Amino acid sequence: MEFTIKQIAAMLGGAVKGDSSLSINMLAKIQDAKSGQIAFLSNPKYEHFIYETKASAVIVKKDFVPKKEVRSTLIMVDDPYSSFTVLLEEYHKMISFQKEGIEAPCFIGENCTTGKSIYRGAFSYIGSNVKIGDNVKIYPHTYIGDNVVIGSNTILHPNVKLYAGTVVGNNCIIHSGTVLGSDGFGFAPQEDGTYKTIPQLGNVILEDNITIGANTVIDCATLSGDSTIVRSGVKLDNLIQIAHNVEIGKNTVIAAQSGISGSTKVGENCILAGQVGIAGHLVIANKTSVGAQAGISKSVKEEGQRLLGYPVLDVKEYFRSYAIFKQLPDISSRLKQLEQKLAVAQSALKSD
Amino acid sequence: MEFTIKQIAAMLGGAVKGDSSLSINMLAKIQDAKSGQIAFLSNPKYEHFIYETKASAVIVKKDFVPKKEVRSTLIMVDDPYSSFTVLLEEYHKMISFQKEGIEAPCFIGENCTTGKSIYRGAFSYIGSNVKIGDNVKIYPHTYIGDNVVIGSNTILHPNVKLYAGTVVGNNCIIHSGTVLGSDGFGFAPQEDGTYKTIPQLGNVILEDNITIGANTVIDCATLSGDSTIVRSGVKLDNLIQIAHNVEIGKNTVIAAQSGISGSTKVGENCILAGQVGIAGHLVIANKTSVGAQAGISKSVKEEGQRLLGYPVLDVKEYFRSYAIFKQLPDISSRLKQLEQKLAVAQSALKSD
Amino acid sequence: MEFTIKQIAAMLGGAVKGDSSLSINMLAKIQDAKSGQIAFLSNPKYEHFIYETKASAVIVKKDFVPKKEVRSTLIMVDDPYSSFTVLLEEYHKMISFQKEGIEAPCFIGENCTTGKSIYRGAFSYIGSNVKIGDNVKIYPHTYIGDNVVIGSNTILHPNVKLYAGTVVGNNCIIHSGTVLGSDGFGFAPQEDGTYKTIPQLGNVILEDNITIGANTVIDCATLSGDSTIVRSGVKLDNLIQIAHNVEIGKNTVIAAQSGISGSTKVGENCILAGQVGIAGHLVIANKTSVGAQAGISKSVKEEGQRLLGYPVLDVKEYFRSYAIFKQLPDISSRLKQLEQKLAVAQSALKSD
Repeated sequence: MEFTIKQIAAMLGGAVKGDSSLSINMLAKIQDAKSGQIAFLSNPKYEHFIYETKASAVIVKKDFVPKKEVRSTLIMVDDPYSSFTVLLEEYHKMISFQKEGIEAPCFIGENCTTGKSIYRGAFSYIGSNVKIGDNVKIYPHTYIGDNVVIGSNTILHPNVKLYAGTVVGNNCIIHSGTVLGSDGFGFAPQEDGTYKTIPQLGNVILEDNITIGANTVIDCATLSGDSTIVRSGVKLDNLIQIAHNVEIGKNTVIAAQSGISGSTKVGENCILAGQVGIAGHLVIANKTSVGAQAGISKSVKEEGQRLLGYPVLDVKEYFRSYAIFKQLPDISSRLKQLEQKLAVAQSALKSD
Repeated sequence: MEFTIKQIAAMLGGAVKGDSSLSINMLAKIQDAKSGQIAFLSNPKYEHFIYETKASAVIVKKDFVPKKEVRSTLIMVDDPYSSFTVLLEEYHKMISFQKEGIEAPCFIGENCTTGKSIYRGAFSYIGSNVKIGDNVKIYPHTYIGDNVVIGSNTILHPNVKLYAGTVVGNNCIIHSGTVLGSDGFGFAPQEDGTYKTIPQLGNVILEDNITIGANTVIDCATLSGDSTIVRSGVKLDNLIQIAHNVEIGKNTVIAAQSGISGSTKVGENCILAGQVGIAGHLVIANKTSVGAQAGISKSVKEEGQRLLGYPVLDVKEYFRSYAIFKQLPDISSRLKQLEQKLAVAQSALKSD
Repeated sequence: MEFTIKQIAAMLGGAVKGDSSLSINMLAKIQDAKSGQIAFLSNPKYEHFIYETKASAVIVKKDFVPKKEVRSTLIMVDDPYSSFTVLLEEYHKMISFQKEGIEAPCFIGENCTTGKSIYRGAFSYIGSNVKIGDNVKIYPHTYIGDNVVIGSNTILHPNVKLYAGTVVGNNCIIHSGTVLGSDGFGFAPQEDGTYKTIPQLGNVILEDNITIGANTVIDCATLSGDSTIVRSGVKLDNLIQIAHNVEIGKNTVIAAQSGISGSTKVGENCILAGQVGIAGHLVIANKTSVGAQAGISKSVKEEGQRLLGYPVLDVKEYFRSYAIFKQLPDISSRLKQLEQKLAVAQSALKSD
C-alpha cells in the first residue's frame, strides 16, 4: 500500500515541487510526520512546522512561497485540507476493503443474491432471501438474518448481528458485537403484576455513510411496517442503546454509552457526548449539543442549544448553579448567621 | 400466518358481527389499524375511533351497541383487552418459534439431551452434559457451556453466551450478544498493590418467563453452590450489568444500561428506568420505582417509593430541590445583598 | 479436582494437626464453610468461628492454640491469609486451564505459531501471522485477527474479538463478547455538515496479569505505531468503554459501565466505581478513587483523592453540598422571609 508522490499528486490534480519519486505509506500531522509520510499545511499559523517536519511530502496551497529551506517535497493544490481529506478517505477505503473471497466453512441460506468483490469470513451466517451489494465485507462470526438487505461498500466487522428484516445502506461500517434489530422493550402489564410480551414486528433501517462502533444495540420498531431509523451520515460510538422506533437525524454524532429511549426523534447535526440519556417520545431539535452524562426528559424545541445536567439546563446556567452548589454549606451557614443577626437587630429595634 | 376472523373468534370464544371470512395478518391499535389488521375497543373514551378505523376486525365488549355505522367486522367478547392480549401472545409465539431442525455445521459435546422441535442454528456450540427441553430455539453462534440446563419453549437469539453451569427456565427469551455466567469482579488486594483473582465458582439461574435484551451481562456467583438469581417474570433491557450474587425479584423491569452491583437484592415488581446504578450489598424493597440515571447507595426499606437523583431522594423532593438549584446564582447574590443591607442596618442601629 | 489435606499442607509447607486424609474440593470463608471445604483464620477477631465451622480444614497461624475443641483439621503456617491466597490462585488456575486440544471445525490462517497445551474451541477463528504462547485457552467463537500476538497462560472466553494487530500479554483473562481494537471514534467535520472517517491505524496492547469482563470495548489508537495501552495488573469489569489512545496505569481497577474518553491517561492503583465517565485528553493521578456515576472533566493532579459528582468534587465536599441541596426549598423560603423581615426592619429604622 505504497504510492509515489507523483501518483498522489496526480490523484489530487496538484503540481509537484521536489523529488516526486519518493514513496508514501502513511498520513500524519505536519508536527508528527516522519519520513515516508505525507502531511498538509493549511493554516498559516502552522507554517513554522514545514521547515522542521520530517514528512517526505507536504500538501500546500498552490501560491505558497517558503521563507526558508523546505526539505519535504511539496504538492501544490487549491485547498490543502480538502485534498488531505480526500487522501484520508482513499487510504481508509484501501485498508478496509482488502479482504476478498469466501472462507470455509460459512453458511448461506436459500434465494440470496450477493454482489462483486464480496468477502464472507469463516463462520459467517447468511439466512434466506438476503440481498447483498458489491464490495461488501462480512467478517467471521457475523450473523445476517432472513430478508436482510445490505447496500454496496459496507463493512460488517467480526460478529455483527443483523436480525431478520434489517436494512443497511451503502458505505456503512459496523463494528464487532453490534446488534441491529433486537426486540424493543415492550410489555403489557397484567393485573397480577406479570407482564405479557408485546411482539416486536418492525425492523431497523440504516441509510448510507453510517458508522457504528462495537457492542452497540439498536432495537427494531414495534409494529410491522414501522422502522427504527438511522439517517445518512450518522456516527455512533460503542455500547450505545437505541430503543425501538427511534429516529436519529442526518449527520448526528453520539459518543459511547449514551442511550435513547423509545420513539424519540433526535434531529440532524446533533452532538451527544458520552453516557447521555434521552427519555422516550421526545423530539430533539437540530444542532443540539448535549454534554456528558446529561439527561433529557423534555423535548428540545430551539435549535443549537448546548445542554448539561439532569434534567438538562443550558450548559452555562448549569455551571453557574454548580459553582454555587459547591458553596452550599457556606451559604447555609451564612443564612443561619443572618437569621440570628436579624433576630438580634429586630429585638434591638423593638427594645428601642 | 394469516387467520380468518372466524378462526380468531373461535380462539377467543367470541361471537362475530359482520364478514367473518376476511383475513387478518396483524394486530394494531384502533387509531392506527389498516385493512387486514385487528384492533380492540375497551375504554369507552376511544369509542369514536371505531367509526373511523380501517381495521378489518375490532374486538369489542359483548354488550357494545354502535351509535353510528361501523365498517369493521366486530368480535364480541367478555373482556376485549384480555382477549387482545391472548392474541398478542399467540402471535408472538407463532413468529418466534418458526425455526426448526439442525443446520450444519454445529457442535454438540458428549452426554447431552435435547427435547422435541429444537432448532440448532449453524455454528451453535453445545458443550457436554447439557440438558435442553422441548421447543428450544438456539440461533447461530450461540454458545452453551458444559453442564448447562435449559427448560422448554426458550429462545436463545444469535450469539447468546451461557457459561458452564448456567440454568435457564421455561419460556425465556434472550437476545443477541448477552452473556450469562461470566466471572464476578472479585480480586484480593495484595500488599504490593497488585490484585489476586478470586475464583468465581457459582452460577447464574434464570427462572421462567424472563426476557433479556441484547448485550446484557449477568455474572456468576462467587462461591460454588451459590447463584446469581433472576426470578420469574423479570424483564431486562439491553446493555445491563448484573453483578455476582445479585437477586432480582419477580416481575421486576429494568431499562437499558442500568447496573446492579454485587450481592444486592432487588425486590419484586420494581421498575428501574435507564442508566440507573445500584451499589452493592443493598436490599431494595418491592415496588420501588427508580428514575433515569439515579444512583442508589443505601438500602430502600419502604415499599412503593419513587426515587431520583444521586444519591436518590423522593422524586418530588428531588424536583423541588432541583428547581431551586437552577436559581442558585440568584440566591447567592440575594444572600450577599442581604448581608450588606443588614450590615448597613446594624451600623445604623449602632449609630442610633 | 480434589486434594487431601496432606497434599495441601505439603503445597503450603505447613504442619497438620488432625486427620490429614480428608478430601478438600473447595475454598470458603470460615463462617460459611461446609464439610469438604477449607477456610483460614487470620484475624483473631474471628477466632470464635473456628469453634463452630463445618470446614474440614482451617489454615491457622503456627502458634495458634485453641481455647475450646476444634472439629476441623488444622494446617499450621506462618501467614494464613497469604497461604489461602496461594490456594485461591492454584485453584483458579486448575479450573481455568482444564480445556485442551482442538475442536472441529475451527479456522487458522497462514504463518501462525501456537505454543503447547493450547485449546482452540470449535468455530474459533485465527487469522494469518498470529503468534500464540503456551497454555493459551481460546474458547469457541473467538476471533483473532491477522498479526495478533498473545503471551502464555492467557484465556479468551467464548466470542472474544481481537482486531488485527492486537497484542495481549501473559496471564490475561478476557471474558465473552469483549472487543479489543475496534476503530477509535474519529471523524473530520466537513463544511456541508457531514463527517469523513479518519482511518484508525494503531492497535491495542494489554500487558500481563490483566482481567477484562464481558462485553467491554477497547478501541485502537488512531495513528500507525501508536497504541491504546492497558498496563500490568489492571482489572476491568463488564461493559466498559476505553477509547482510542487511552492508557490505564498498573493495577488500576475499573467497575462496570465506566467510560474513558480518547487520549486520557489514568494513573496507577486508581479505583473507579461503576458508571464513571472521564473526558478526553486528561491525566488522572495515581491512587485516585472515583465514586459511582461521577464525571471527571479536568485532569486530577494530586494523588490519592476521593472524588464524586459531576464535575467531581472531593467526596466529603460533595456530600456536604448535597446535604444542603436536599434542603434547598427550605433555604429558598427562609431567604425570602429574611428579605421581608429586613425590609420591615429597614422601614422601621427609616421611620425612626
